Amino acid sequence: MPLLGPAPFSVARYLVSRTTVPKLALLTARASRTRHDGRRRMGTLPEGESPAATGELSTRELDATLNRRERVVILGSGWAGYSLSRTLDHRKYQVVIVSPRSYFVFTPLLASTAVGTLEFRTAVESIRSRRNRAAFIQGWADDVDLYSKTVRVEEAVADPRQGTALVAARYEGKDAATLDAELVAKHASGQMFNLRYDKLVIAVGCYNQTFDVPGVRQHAHFLKDVGDARKIRRRLLESFETAALPTTPDAVRRQILHFAVVGGGPTGVEFSAELHDLIYQDMARIYPELVQFAKISLFDVSPSVLSAFDARLARYALDLFARGGIDVKTSRTIQSLRAGLPGVDPGLKSGRLGYTLSIAGEPDVGVGMCIWSTGLMMNPFIQKALSTIRRFPPKEVIFKSAMPHAGEIPWHILRDPKTGSIVTNDRLRVLIVPDEAEHAEPGVKAHLRDVFAIGDCSVIEGVQYPATAQVASQKALWLAKRLNRGDLHTTRFRFRNLGILAYLGGSKAIYEIGNKGQGIAGRAAWLVWRGAYLAKSISWRNRVLIPIYWFLNWAFGRDISRF
Amino acid sequence: MPLLGPAPFSVARYLVSRTTVPKLALLTARASRTRHDGRRRMGTLPEGESPAATGELSTRELDATLNRRERVVILGSGWAGYSLSRTLDHRKYQVVIVSPRSYFVFTPLLASTAVGTLEFRTAVESIRSRRNRAAFIQGWADDVDLYSKTVRVEEAVADPRQGTALVAARYEGKDAATLDAELVAKHASGQMFNLRYDKLVIAVGCYNQTFDVPGVRQHAHFLKDVGDARKIRRRLLESFETAALPTTPDAVRRQILHFAVVGGGPTGVEFSAELHDLIYQDMARIYPELVQFAKISLFDVSPSVLSAFDARLARYALDLFARGGIDVKTSRTIQSLRAGLPGVDPGLKSGRLGYTLSIAGEPDVGVGMCIWSTGLMMNPFIQKALSTIRRFPPKEVIFKSAMPHAGEIPWHILRDPKTGSIVTNDRLRVLIVPDEAEHAEPGVKAHLRDVFAIGDCSVIEGVQYPATAQVASQKALWLAKRLNRGDLHTTRFRFRNLGILAYLGGSKAIYEIGNKGQGIAGRAAWLVWRGAYLAKSISWRNRVLIPIYWFLNWAFGRDISRF
Repeated sequence: MPLLGPAPFSVARYLVSRTTVPKLALLTARASRTRHDGRRRMGTLPEGESPAATGELSTRELDATLNRRERVVILGSGWAGYSLSRTLDHRKYQVVIVSPRSYFVFTPLLASTAVGTLEFRTAVESIRSRRNRAAFIQGWADDVDLYSKTVRVEEAVADPRQGTALVAARYEGKDAATLDAELVAKHASGQMFNLRYDKLVIAVGCYNQTFDVPGVRQHAHFLKDVGDARKIRRRLLESFETAALPTTPDAVRRQILHFAVVGGGPTGVEFSAELHDLIYQDMARIYPELVQFAKISLFDVSPSVLSAFDARLARYALDLFARGGIDVKTSRTIQSLRAGLPGVDPGLKSGRLGYTLSIAGEPDVGVGMCIWSTGLMMNPFIQKALSTIRRFPPKEVIFKSAMPHAGEIPWHILRDPKTGSIVTNDRLRVLIVPDEAEHAEPGVKAHLRDVFAIGDCSVIEGVQYPATAQVASQKALWLAKRLNRGDLHTTRFRFRNLGILAYLGGSKAIYEIGNKGQGIAGRAAWLVWRGAYLAKSISWRNRVLIPIYWFLNWAFGRDISRF
Repeated sequence: MPLLGPAPFSVARYLVSRTTVPKLALLTARASRTRHDGRRRMGTLPEGESPAATGELSTRELDATLNRRERVVILGSGWAGYSLSRTLDHRKYQVVIVSPRSYFVFTPLLASTAVGTLEFRTAVESIRSRRNRAAFIQGWADDVDLYSKTVRVEEAVADPRQGTALVAARYEGKDAATLDAELVAKHASGQMFNLRYDKLVIAVGCYNQTFDVPGVRQHAHFLKDVGDARKIRRRLLESFETAALPTTPDAVRRQILHFAVVGGGPTGVEFSAELHDLIYQDMARIYPELVQFAKISLFDVSPSVLSAFDARLARYALDLFARGGIDVKTSRTIQSLRAGLPGVDPGLKSGRLGYTLSIAGEPDVGVGMCIWSTGLMMNPFIQKALSTIRRFPPKEVIFKSAMPHAGEIPWHILRDPKTGSIVTNDRLRVLIVPDEAEHAEPGVKAHLRDVFAIGDCSVIEGVQYPATAQVASQKALWLAKRLNRGDLHTTRFRFRNLGILAYLGGSKAIYEIGNKGQGIAGRAAWLVWRGAYLAKSISWRNRVLIPIYWFLNWAFGRDISRF
């Protein structure tokens, strides 16, 4: 087996030695499989023979149902990966999704679920369903071997992080020896296995950016996954219930009912708006004595918010927020987020439930919760797995001009210098460049025939599209069509801007139509907002449930049970 | 302040000493409150003066809205407490619910939510809502002082146990010194306060009984609260997803897809039935290759299941289970529940996700989950708070015959010798008896004028009603009516048996009508089951949502997203 790094070597060594260690003997079925695996890993198979051809027992169920189709392995189950899996022709391709989460999140509705306007599951679609014929493996893609066309997968069924935003690499803070030992243990415990692909689509998305501001990873709430939304809902209601206790002093009430939102993009703005609706439509009736203490502040490091929108629409939003009492604080730099409230006895229980936000040049602020939404951090998988390509079979690579010695020099995947994203061509194929310029003519580039990258983890060479769900799903649908028809060479991907929307609270929104700076604001834009997201919802279950929850929560108020 | 035990003395001591310790100084508002509290606790106020009259600052918001009404403090928010709070006349009484959970659980639908037939919130009603005018304090009742008519409350807003079944007393395993120190710390940190009542209704319910079988508390899943249902749903889906991994050997699949239900009462039977529906209606389509490994076993220590039902109905249920493949194993004693599967290498990750069930006289069984539902354990609050009454004002007690020296002898609350429940008379007033027989004539009894007990934590003297939601809510409604009308003396509580229902899976149920041994079984009984619980549902929100979820999950299958 060709190797991407030193780790699999140690696995091989380990597997040799363990055959002599009886206490590690597994169940019969398991043991025979491991021996087989071991033999392959130890390199006794002829090099270049594909693991599938020699009977990769660990994926035998997938292999049995392949039926001469090509296998498309999709890494990721977000807007890009999930849309692709649903559109690919299952008669032509065996589609296998590898993702650490077992569902797709309809992100535009997450903020609504975080305040209870919608139930969590209305923003979620299970990858496995009666209708979806894609196979699914719940796991992390850990490494890619371009030579044998396999992905090393680490299972993630019981991963405690599933459902919540990712802010740090899994291997962060661990040295090479620790990582190596972990890898060996994971192979031995059946947590890792190899999955062969014919075509690979990298759609792993991005992590949440914290800029390493102290305390943010530990104490902030993010809004990227449905588990995050649940945590926020719980914490919001907990803050009000704490404030309602007879033992909570007013000074503490004022702080734990202060909610800070950091990041003035659409996510931060929409969450502030939804929170405002919750507080003034429901909490004001349920806790009439507490609403005087509630406050929302929206912080951004730049001098403006909603910069993706036309200036007039952004100004409309700011005016609306000002009238609604949402305090928009631009040009503010957050320095840290600590547990506990400022100026409150640390022994007082209700005071321990808040956080202290430090802002450059301003006094510390006590808050009940800090929602953090300041953009994207590149997925560590991109940095780790695809940084150096040791070896690839030349037929997998398409060169623009003849390169006779291409197989002899080291290459790496081309990454965007600013964002770290994978760079693809406009057919979404991943580009590779020689490691060092001296090995080749300047500017030489090639692309991988069967490896694609879509979604937030990728950019197209020379084009600036925003990192949005719209771009991700358009790329996915374009790629699925091309693969289904087999006409990848006849056309090139182009993004068609359908406009951007942001909900602003109180049944008002802004809608910018296309690229022309035209837009509408107010109730009409809100109807577009609701209509668009209802129409885009994927399952009929959710298309039925979403308007029912909109109606019920309008008629009876949002549910504030906390469990 | 009259004292029930030694602890408040130490609080007083502590409060004296802390005035000289500046580092403990709290916020101004907080400090003045504490000093006031301290003064009262230290006994400088005239004995017998009620804390409210001297300005109990910690409940000033409640006191301000009292408006000459009597305050009814209800401990608990289950069938008894919640029903009572909704029916009491709010013009006549200020109703205050004290409960560690912020919602009422509609328990008959919990098993449906645990498998995804219904969404969790359809089995939950928030205590606070736009419509419910009862005040709510999220806390544990910790102690009751009959003399000054106050309840000591410990706040529980951030209690990590909320939402899940309780299986052990909070103070278990702690010695008196530790408890005393904790009490002091809780008073100091504002976690404890006193709440005055005019009438007290004890409706704290029961805990889950584990019979101290080793490992059950740690590893079993219970089905008493909505957080339990969520854990079960998550674990069920996790078991299937683990079994679906290519690295999971068949021998492990067979064990982690084996689900053990312990307890053959209606809860255990209904959960088995719902689980059977989930597996054969949904999982069979989503994981067709795995359904061969799935198995449900229902264990009971007694020789029969569903003993509350007529023998013919119970036999119908057994026949249905036998045909559906649910293995009913009676006369089995569970000896322990351990983490890890028997006969599987403990190093194998997927093997670590299961449990080992030890059964007397049988080989160990590997299971993916053990659902434990073997009846009720008396609430430790009953044992602790009301075991000895040091002192009570004679006018609070009603004696059957003249007892001139009643105030001079120690009394305690009468408890059922078998179950440990509080014994009430048939007006639901709590009975008290002298501590030692020599102090009074044999059989002497009295009852407390303003203290009632309803629900699973209480029994009526000389009557055997089952510990069911039906009895609890009938007691609550009867008591609410009497208190609203002020005619407690003119009538006595009598339970009217409306029949019992149990769902058996596959759209079949059994329904026993009243006490006459009559009943129906099959699809008609299932329609009664659905109709009855839909009609009994409390909010309009849930009455709309429940049939919608029934329809959607029938039409599109249950949602299996896991987060």
